[in-house]
Order: sequence, then structure tokens, then C-alpha cells
Amino acid sequence: MTLDNLVSEIRKKRSFLCVGLDTDVKKIPEQLLIEDDPVFAFNKAIIDTTHPYCVAYKPNIAFYEAQGVNGWRSLEKTIGYLNHYHPEIFTIADAKRGDIGNTAHQYASAFFEDLDFDSLTVAPYMGRDSVEPFLAYEGKFAILLALTSNPGAFDFQVNEEVDKQLFEKVLKISTEYANAERLMYVVGATKTEYIRAIRKIVPDSFLLIPGVGAQGGDLKAVCEAAMTDKVGILINSSRGIIYASRDSDFAEVAAGRAQVLQEEMAKYLTD
Amino acid sequence: MTLDNLVSEIRKKRSFLCVGLDTDVKKIPEQLLIEDDPVFAFNKAIIDTTHPYCVAYKPNIAFYEAQGVNGWRSLEKTIGYLNHYHPEIFTIADAKRGDIGNTAHQYASAFFEDLDFDSLTVAPYMGRDSVEPFLAYEGKFAILLALTSNPGAFDFQVNEEVDKQLFEKVLKISTEYANAERLMYVVGATKTEYIRAIRKIVPDSFLLIPGVGAQGGDLKAVCEAAMTDKVGILINSSRGIIYASRDSDFAEVAAGRAQVLQEEMAKYLTD
Repeated sequence: MTLDNLVSEIRKKRSFLCVGLDTDVKKIPEQLLIEDDPVFAFNKAIIDTTHPYCVAYKPNIAFYEAQGVNGWRSLEKTIGYLNHYHPEIFTIADAKRGDIGNTAHQYASAFFEDLDFDSLTVAPYMGRDSVEPFLAYEGKFAILLALTSNPGAFDFQVNEEVDKQLFEKVLKISTEYANAERLMYVVGATKTEYIRAIRKIVPDSFLLIPGVGAQGGDLKAVCEAAMTDKVGILINSSRGIIYASRDSDFAEVAAGRAQVLQEEMAKYLTD
Repeated sequence: MTLDNLVSEIRKKRSFLCVGLDTDVKKIPEQLLIEDDPVFAFNKAIIDTTHPYCVAYKPNIAFYEAQGVNGWRSLEKTIGYLNHYHPEIFTIADAKRGDIGNTAHQYASAFFEDLDFDSLTVAPYMGRDSVEPFLAYEGKFAILLALTSNPGAFDFQVNEEVDKQLFEKVLKISTEYANAERLMYVVGATKTEYIRAIRKIVPDSFLLIPGVGAQGGDLKAVCEAAMTDKVGILINSSRGIIYASRDSDFAEVAAGRAQVLQEEMAKYLTD
């Protein structure tokens, strides 16, 4: 998928919402546990009701790996379902991979070829040759961790000296790897004071912003700081949508939550 | 496994060799392709012949994920075989995971509970709460990336200002997370000039050192700089051992390569 395809879809749906599929078999409605594949059954139900309100889905790979072979099968079915029935929707494998070139090629093969995701989150610590294998695919994106929204982000990403921010160094150096047609960035929504600085370094790149919702970011402030004339942001919500109800109406309640976010997002979209 | 167990095994075998199981179905001998599970058949043969000469095995998880459900099954069988027949051997899931606490818990569950690895490589970029879930397991280790051996290591880990090294900051701050009974570090062997500095910050921790062999490190220099009175190092070799031959004698040739390294290592072990 190209950036233009993604922006078109955002304008059509008037939404830049990404729904995080952090599907934990211990948290899904009990009624699904009789299914052959409860995790896929849950994801399918969530996709079926929420897709009018979002432009991206982001399975969190850890939750699938925690289920071993069965989890990997649920992941294959989920991405297969999305690619077959909703090819217009942007898919993100939230895997935060990062390893030397030879190994990164294997991850790229797994997520971009076999599973056919549109994008993968990538950790920058190991530098250029750990990122480049993900940049070789036309229409696929590496989404590099820049500034994350967790407390530990302050251990290494942010420095006491304002002119020596590691997250800014990651942004600056990575612009030498590729441009906005291949690279996006994870930027925590809880730190809008940094978003303006980030926009100066990567004015055209999409930012994937987690943390609006469960982690307490403010949608309006984030939009004002981060949006570009080609939108430039995807806002993720996971638990606040998919676990809004554990009753038999879970998929409809999830759609309701997604719709509320979509309607709020529509206010900030210009044409 | 405790550190004392690992050190005892090293002294018994007179080896601190780790064999990397970067098993690529495209690189294994053709004769194995008729097996039900060629990747496991290869790993089993390699383990059967090399285990007298090494104290650790390190499956590189990317190579298994690239094979999807089948790959995950090969991984389960490989770690199951090691834990059943060679419980004295230290096992490392080379996965370089790193994500927020909630997600890291899922990875810890996958690798430490379900698969029952002794350790997991972890990327430090997201800080304390992304590492802590791996530190909660008695007898299990997080092996944190400090200084890696690839060219991209110089993008972020190493700074122009010698007193502002990111890899040193990672070492220093992580000593506040846990001690040598829970934390080890990945340190690239191609940079022995840094190893002495690293030893000052983490005098007791084990270092997992890749890059001797295919990446050109020098075993003697590494040992002089990195060994402690409780050994303190594991040296990994992957391709140089497991792909030493593609003929029917591949497992014996691999064992020969491992033995050469073991005999060299024995020279540097005291007692």
C-alpha cells in the first residue's frame, strides 16, 4: 500500500484510527472459548464491526507468540482475513523487531512476504543494517520506534540535555535510510511537547501514535501538534476498544467505541 | 539455571562455546528435506554431535518465524529436545524483544514459561518497564543488547563523545534493574577496545559475545579483556559451525569445528 492509498482511505472514512489487536485469550468473552480458534473468532468479530470506523489494524505479535503454534495460526488467519476482505486497510505487525541484516532479512520475509503485512514496527538500537532489510519492499513500511509512551522511555530515549535527545538522533539519522514512502515512526501521545520538535525533523512522515485512550493522551492536542496537510498520523487504540465489553455484545460495543473516536477524528480532518 | 550451574558446566566441559542455531531451511543439506520436519532434524543432528563441546545453544528466532507455523513447531521441538536430553545446557532464545510491560509479559510467558528457555535477548531502547518482566523469573536471564557487532552499532550505541556512550549508559542504568543473577549482556567481539570499559561497569555479569568466527573477532584478545574469575563469557558461533558442510557428514564436520573452538577455549580457562 502506498502513502497516497492510506491518505485516500483516511479521507474517505474520515478516520485515522488504528485498532490494536492485542488479543489475549484470557480476556476474550467466554462464549468464544468453544470455537476452534477463539482468538481468530474474536478478531474476526471485532474486524467485522469496527472496520467502517478505522483505517488500520495492528496485531501485537507478543500476544500470538504467547500461544505458541496455535497463536501463530491465529495470526496467519487474522492477516489473511484482513488482506482478503479488506485489502484497503493498512496492516501493522507490532513486533518491534531489530537484529543484524542477515536476521532482519528473515523477519522481513516472515512479516512482509509470508504474512503480507503492510508494515512492521522496528526497534532502532542496532542501527542502519538492522533497518534496511525492511526498506527494500515497494509499498511496505518500517515503523521505527522514536519516542515511546511508557515510563521507561525516559531511561534512554530522552536525555537531560535537550540538544542530545536520542529519539531526535534516531529521527535524524533514519532520514538518511529512507523517506516517508518507506519509514514511519512510533511517537508516544503522552508527550505532545515533543511532537512539534519531531515534526520539524520528519515533516512528511506518518506517525503511529499509541497511548490515546488507556494511556491518557489528548486527541485534540496531538492532532494540533502532529497533523500535516496529508494527515500524517495514525492513532492507535487497543484495550479501550476491543475489551470494552466481555458480554455477547462485545463486537457491537467495540464498534461503538471506535465510532466515537472516528467522529472525534472527523472534526480535525480538513479535506 | 543459576550462574553457578553454568560456570560448573563450563569448567567441566572446558568450553564456553554457544552454538547458534540460525537454521535456514534453504541452507541445510538436501538429504534432510525428505524429513517431516527438516529444521528439527538438522538441529537434532547438530545437537547430538556438538553437545560435548559447548555449554549453550542459541536458536535465532527470526529463522523459525520465517517458516510460520511450521517454524514455530520446529522451535518447540528443538527447545523440548534440549530441555529433555540436555538440561545442563544453557538455552538462549535470540529474539531481541523489547516492548512495554504489558506486552513484555506476553513475551516472557512465551519464551520462559511455554518454551522454557533459560534466557532471552532483549533490546533496551524502551527502558526499564520493557525489561523488568523478564527479570521476575528465578533462574532465568535477560541478555540485554549493549554493544553489538554489526556496522549499524555505530549509528546509536556509540557516540562521538567518549564520555557519552549509549552502550555504557545502558550498562549503568540496567545495573539498577537487576544484578548478574538475572542480567547478561550482548557485547560484540569485534570491539575489544570497548570490552575493558564494559568490564568496569559490569564486573560480574556474563557477556554473550557473537562475532568470533564469521565476523572476525580474535578469541585470545576477547578472553584477555572479558574473562572474570568466574569465566563471565559465552562465545557464540553460528554459521561457522552449523554450515561447515552441506554433505551427509554435516553433523560430524560441525562437531569438528566446535571441538577446535573448545580446545582453543580450554587454553584460556584456569583451574
